[in-house]
Amino acid sequence: MPGRKRLQLALFGAGRMGSIHAANIATHPRAVLAAIVDPNIEGARALAETFQSHVRSATDVFDDPAVDAIVIASAASTHPELIDQALARGKAVFCEKPLARDLDTVRSLVAAVEVAGTPFLLAFNRRFDPGFASLASRLREGKAGAPELVLLTSRDPRPPPIDYIVASGGILRETTIHDIDMARWLTGEEPDSVYAVGAARTDPRIAAAGHVDTVMVTLTMPSGTLVSINNSLRSAYGYDQRAEIHGAGGMLQLGNVLSTPVTAWNADGGSSDRPQPFFLERYADAYRRELDYFVNRLEEGGAMSPGAADGLRALEIAEAAEESMRSGLAIKLS
Amino acid sequence: MPGRKRLQLALFGAGRMGSIHAANIATHPRAVLAAIVDPNIEGARALAETFQSHVRSATDVFDDPAVDAIVIASAASTHPELIDQALARGKAVFCEKPLARDLDTVRSLVAAVEVAGTPFLLAFNRRFDPGFASLASRLREGKAGAPELVLLTSRDPRPPPIDYIVASGGILRETTIHDIDMARWLTGEEPDSVYAVGAARTDPRIAAAGHVDTVMVTLTMPSGTLVSINNSLRSAYGYDQRAEIHGAGGMLQLGNVLSTPVTAWNADGGSSDRPQPFFLERYADAYRRELDYFVNRLEEGGAMSPGAADGLRALEIAEAAEESMRSGLAIKLS
Amino acid sequence: MPGRKRLQLALFGAGRMGSIHAANIATHPRAVLAAIVDPNIEGARALAETFQSHVRSATDVFDDPAVDAIVIASAASTHPELIDQALARGKAVFCEKPLARDLDTVRSLVAAVEVAGTPFLLAFNRRFDPGFASLASRLREGKAGAPELVLLTSRDPRPPPIDYIVASGGILRETTIHDIDMARWLTGEEPDSVYAVGAARTDPRIAAAGHVDTVMVTLTMPSGTLVSINNSLRSAYGYDQRAEIHGAGGMLQLGNVLSTPVTAWNADGGSSDRPQPFFLERYADAYRRELDYFVNRLEEGGAMSPGAADGLRALEIAEAAEESMRSGLAIKLS
Amino acid sequence: MPGRKRLQLALFGAGRMGSIHAANIATHPRAVLAAIVDPNIEGARALAETFQSHVRSATDVFDDPAVDAIVIASAASTHPELIDQALARGKAVFCEKPLARDLDTVRSLVAAVEVAGTPFLLAFNRRFDPGFASLASRLREGKAGAPELVLLTSRDPRPPPIDYIVASGGILRETTIHDIDMARWLTGEEPDSVYAVGAARTDPRIAAAGHVDTVMVTLTMPSGTLVSINNSLRSAYGYDQRAEIHGAGGMLQLGNVLSTPVTAWNADGGSSDRPQPFFLERYADAYRRELDYFVNRLEEGGAMSPGAADGLRALEIAEAAEESMRSGLAIKLS
Repeated sequence: MPGRKRLQLALFGAGRMGSIHAANIATHPRAVLAAIVDPNIEGARALAETFQSHVRSATDVFDDPAVDAIVIASAASTHPELIDQALARGKAVFCEKPLARDLDTVRSLVAAVEVAGTPFLLAFNRRFDPGFASLASRLREGKAGAPELVLLTSRDPRPPPIDYIVASGGILRETTIHDIDMARWLTGEEPDSVYAVGAARTDPRIAAAGHVDTVMVTLTMPSGTLVSINNSLRSAYGYDQRAEIHGAGGMLQLGNVLSTPVTAWNADGGSSDRPQPFFLERYADAYRRELDYFVNRLEEGGAMSPGAADGLRALEIAEAAEESMRSGLAIKLS
Repeated sequence: MPGRKRLQLALFGAGRMGSIHAANIATHPRAVLAAIVDPNIEGARALAETFQSHVRSATDVFDDPAVDAIVIASAASTHPELIDQALARGKAVFCEKPLARDLDTVRSLVAAVEVAGTPFLLAFNRRFDPGFASLASRLREGKAGAPELVLLTSRDPRPPPIDYIVASGGILRETTIHDIDMARWLTGEEPDSVYAVGAARTDPRIAAAGHVDTVMVTLTMPSGTLVSINNSLRSAYGYDQRAEIHGAGGMLQLGNVLSTPVTAWNADGGSSDRPQPFFLERYADAYRRELDYFVNRLEEGGAMSPGAADGLRALEIAEAAEESMRSGLAIKLS
Repeated sequence: MPGRKRLQLALFGAGRMGSIHAANIATHPRAVLAAIVDPNIEGARALAETFQSHVRSATDVFDDPAVDAIVIASAASTHPELIDQALARGKAVFCEKPLARDLDTVRSLVAAVEVAGTPFLLAFNRRFDPGFASLASRLREGKAGAPELVLLTSRDPRPPPIDYIVASGGILRETTIHDIDMARWLTGEEPDSVYAVGAARTDPRIAAAGHVDTVMVTLTMPSGTLVSINNSLRSAYGYDQRAEIHGAGGMLQLGNVLSTPVTAWNADGGSSDRPQPFFLERYADAYRRELDYFVNRLEEGGAMSPGAADGLRALEIAEAAEESMRSGLAIKLS
Repeated sequence: MPGRKRLQLALFGAGRMGSIHAANIATHPRAVLAAIVDPNIEGARALAETFQSHVRSATDVFDDPAVDAIVIASAASTHPELIDQALARGKAVFCEKPLARDLDTVRSLVAAVEVAGTPFLLAFNRRFDPGFASLASRLREGKAGAPELVLLTSRDPRPPPIDYIVASGGILRETTIHDIDMARWLTGEEPDSVYAVGAARTDPRIAAAGHVDTVMVTLTMPSGTLVSINNSLRSAYGYDQRAEIHGAGGMLQLGNVLSTPVTAWNADGGSSDRPQPFFLERYADAYRRELDYFVNRLEEGGAMSPGAADGLRALEIAEAAEESMRSGLAIKLS
C-alpha cells in the first residue's frame, strides 16, 4: 500500500493511562501500536486484543529497530530505567510525568536527554487540552492584555490511597506541579518567589504521614504578575479544573467541562450537571491531541515541548513550595 | 485467545458518517470492522488502512457467513436495496436514516423487517446523545413532573447544496424529522395534530425550488402536552441543538455543547466559545454510544429501539407537517 | 425654590401595582405624588403616610387643575371611566393594561384618546425592562441580522384565583397579550396569521370554567418571520420570562434574572438560585423606567409609546388566538 | 396620624453615597430624612428638594433632640469628629468606612463607642448584599460543609485619582479591607497569619507614590482554612465582585451580577452583558438592606453588626498585609 510509513510505537503500561494511549495510538492514521509491555500479562493481553496489537517484553521492544518510539505509562519507579534504555537505543520518548521521584535523578535524566538529542515529550497533558490551549493562544494574541493576576484551581474528586500520597511525595509534587507548569506556560515567565500554605483536612492519615491535602501557593513573576494556585484532594462535585487570567485588557476564564449540558429547574433553582468525574474523562481530548502532537513532531523532526527540562523546572518550584510550607517563609527562586 | 467471539461488522459507506462508524467499530472491544464497501475505492482504502480493515464488494460481504451485521452509512438511495439484502441473508442492520425517500417504500421496508425478525436499529442518533438521554431519563424519573410544554430547537450552521435539499425532500423530512422523533420519545405519546409554518430566508434558490429553510411546527399530544419545534438551515453561531421540557414539577433544559469552556471578558461583556460546529463534533459521543448499544443488543438478543417503525412514524408526521405548511391547516393525525 | 415645576401625579389604586408606582413617583426628582385614590381608605392612608402624600377622592383629583396626570393602577373594571374623565379634564394618562375588558369599549376608548390628543401611555411594562429594551435596541442595530425565528416564553409561578381568570378573559387576554405586544415591538411587524393551541393542566376548575392555563401560539409575519409564544400559569421554579431572536446574523437571547448570583456545587451538580419570584421583583426596574419615561415625555411633549392603539392591536390578536384555539384553524389577520 | 413614630435620621454628606442613603431613608416606611448636612450647599439643596428634606448645619442637627441617628457619608477625614459628637449627644451612628485613617484614632474611637454603648453600625456593605448574605447563610447551614478554601475577588473598574490612593492609605486599606472583613465573616475565624504580594501595573504614578494596584493576599485560619484574596484597581469588564468557598461537602460560588441577562450569539461565540459598572449599581440592594437593618435594630435595641470593632480588626489585618508586602515575610497575627 502506498504512502508514508506509519510510526511504530511501543506502549509501556497497560493500566488506566496505558489504555487511553493504546486507543489513541491504534486509531491514529499515521501510527501503529506495535507492542504492549506490562508485567501484568493479563492486562496487557486484553489491551492487545482490543487494539489488535502484541504483548512483548521490554528487551524485545528495545532490540527491535522497527520500533520508532516508546510511550511510558508504567509505574513512576520504572521511568528512569526506561528513559535510559530509550536514549541508548535511539528511540523517541513520550513520557508520563514524573521523570523520576527525586530531583537528582531528574537532573541527570534531563542532562542525558539533552546529550542524546533524542525527541522527548514530557506529557503535561493540560497543555494539549483544547480549553487550556485556547486560553494560552488567546492570551498570546493579546485578548486580555498583559497578564496581571492568574488563578489556577485543581481539585481532585477524592484522595488517592495514603501509600500513593507518600510514594508520590505529596500534593505539591503530584498535583500542584501541573499548575506550576501551567503558570510557567501561560505567563511565559519563570517565578522569582514562591509561598505556600497547606492543611490536612480530608483524612487523619494524611496528617499522620506528615502530608497535606489542601494547599494555596503564591508565585510572583518578574513582570509583577501574581499567581495563586489552590488545590485540594477532595471535591464533592467532581474534578475541578479551572483557570483565570486577569490582564490589562480583560479577563480570560477556563471553566469546568460538565458531563452533560442538562439543567433542571425547580423550586430550589436551576441545577446543572456535574463537572467531568476525573482526568480520564476531562482530558480525553488532551490525550488524543498530545499523542497526535508527538506523532507530528516525530515526523517533522525538531524539539518537542514540554520537554524534560520543563519537568525539572516544575519539580524545582514544587520543592521550593514544599520548603515554604514547612518553614513559613517565602522562597526566592533563582 | 479465549473469550467471546467479536462481532464482525461490515460498513457500507466510507464518507463522513462512515468514517465515524469505522473508528467506533474498530475501537470497540467486542466488534471487528470486517469490511468496508464503497464505490469510491480510494476513500474506502484510506479508511481500511487507518483501521486495519479490508475493502470488499457488497456481494462478497453478503455472501460471507462470518459477517454478523451491516452498518449502512451510504447514500440514502442505496438504503432499501441494502436492507432487503441484509434481511434476505439474515444479517442484522444498523441503518442511518432515512430508510427510504418515499413513504411507500418505507412502509414496505418496515413490514419486511417485521416479517424477517432481523435485529434492526434505525440510527436516530440523538437518542444516544448523553445529554438527550439524560433529559429523557430525568423526565421518566419525574424530575419535571408530567410534561406540559416541550420546545425543540435544531438549527444547522448552513444550508446543504440545493440539490441535496430537493433530493432529501426538504427540511421537514431531513431535519425536523429528528425533532419529531425526539418529541415522540420524550413525551412517550403520539401526536394527534400537527401545524407547520415555514419561510425561505437564506437563499433564493430554496424558494425557487419550492422549499423552505425556516420552520415552526406545533404538535399536540393526547395528554394536552404541547410541542413547538423550530428549525433553520442557517445558524451564524454554529450547530444549535437544544431542548426544553416544562412540566408540573419544573423544567429540564438541554443546552448546547460549547467547543471549549473558555470565556473572554472585556468592555463588551463576557464572550463564551461557540457551540460545536456541526453534527460530527456535537454527536461524536452519541455515535459511539449508538454503536455500543447495537453491539450489546446483538449480543443480548431482543428488539432494538429506535426501530424501523419509528422511522416510519416520524416520516408520516413530517409529511403531515408538509401538508399543513402547504394548506395552512392543522392536520389531524390518526 | 428655583427650577422646573415638578409634575403633579395622582395615583388611582393603592394595591400591589399602586404601591410600586407610588414609590417611583415619590422618589422621582421631577414628579410629586399629589394624591392617592382608593376605595380601600386604610390602604390608601398607609401608602400616603409612607410617601408623604394625601388620600383624596376621584372628584377632588379631577377637579384640581394642579394635577397634571393620573396613574391608573386600580381594578380593570374602573379603567374606562377613569380614562373618560381624564380625557374630559385634560389630564395625561398612565394606564395599566387593560384599557377595558371588551373589544368594543377598547375601540371606543382608543378613538376617544385619539380625538382628545391627550398624552397617553399604555403600561406594557416589558418594553421598559432593561433586558427587553437591550434586546430590542441590539436587534435594531442589526446585531442578529433580520429576525427569522422569535421565541417568547412567559410563565407565571402559579395561577391566579379562578374568578380572576374568568373575569380577565383568560390566559390569552391576560398573559399572552404581553408576548403579542413584544412580538409586534421586536419585529416591527403586524402578524398576518395566528394559530393557538391550549390545555388545562394545573387545576380542574380552570377546565371546568372553559379556560386553559397552558398555550402555544404561532404568529407569522409578512416578512416570513415566525414567532412562537408559550405560556403557562404554573412554573415551579419562579417567574419565567425569556425571549430569543434568531436572525440572519446570529441570535439574541434574554434569560431570566436570578434572585442572587450564588451557585452551590455538590454531588448533584451546580445549583443556581431561582429566577425572580414574580413580576413585582422581576420588573421593578421596568416600572421605574416606565414612570421616568412618562415624566420625560410629559415634559417634552409629543406622543407616547406604547399608546392606546397598541393595547387595541394586541387585544385583537389575542382574540384571534382565542378563536384559533376554539376552532382549530389558523386565523388570518387583516 | 396613628402608629409608630418614624425615626428621624440626619444625613452627613450629599455626594454619591449620600444620595443613595438619602433615597433609602426617604422611602423607608419607618424612617424620615430629617436633615442633610454638607458644606457643598448646592448639592445638599438639590438632594433635599428631591426627597422633601431640609438642609441644616451640623450644630443644628446635634442640638436637635428629635434627631435619633446620624448617617455618616461625608469625607473620611470628618468621621472621627462626627462620631465623637454623636456619642456625646447620644445619637446612634451609621458610619461609612473608615472610622478613621490611622490605627490609633480607630482604636480610641472603638473604645469610645464601647464606653458610650451607643448603637453603632459600621457600613461594610457587602454583608448586606443579598448574594453575599445568601452565601454566608448557606455556609452556616452546612451547604458546603466545613470551609477549606476561600477565594475572594474584588476588582475595581479603574483606579481612583492618585491623590485619593495616597490619602486612603492604598489598596490594602481601601479595597482589600472589604475582603478581609468578608473572610472573617464567612469563616467565623480570625486569621493567624497573612502574606501579601503586590505590583503596580496600571499607572506609573502609583508606583512612583510607593503604592501598588494589584495584590494577592493569603490568610490562614486556625482551623486550617486557607483564604486567597486578589484585588486590582483596573478591570476592563466592569466591577468584579466574586467569592468562592470550597468545603468538605461542596462549593459555594458568588458570581457577578450582569447589567442585563441578554446574550448575543454569532460566529465569535455567545457574548453576555457586562457586570454592573461599579459599587453604586452593584450594591444598590445592599445599601437598602443595610439601612433597613439599621432602622430595625434601632427600633428593637441591641448591638449592631458589623460594629466599630470589626472595622478595627479589618484594619489591623490590612496593616499586617502591608507589612508583609513590604518585608516579604508572612506576618503572624495575634
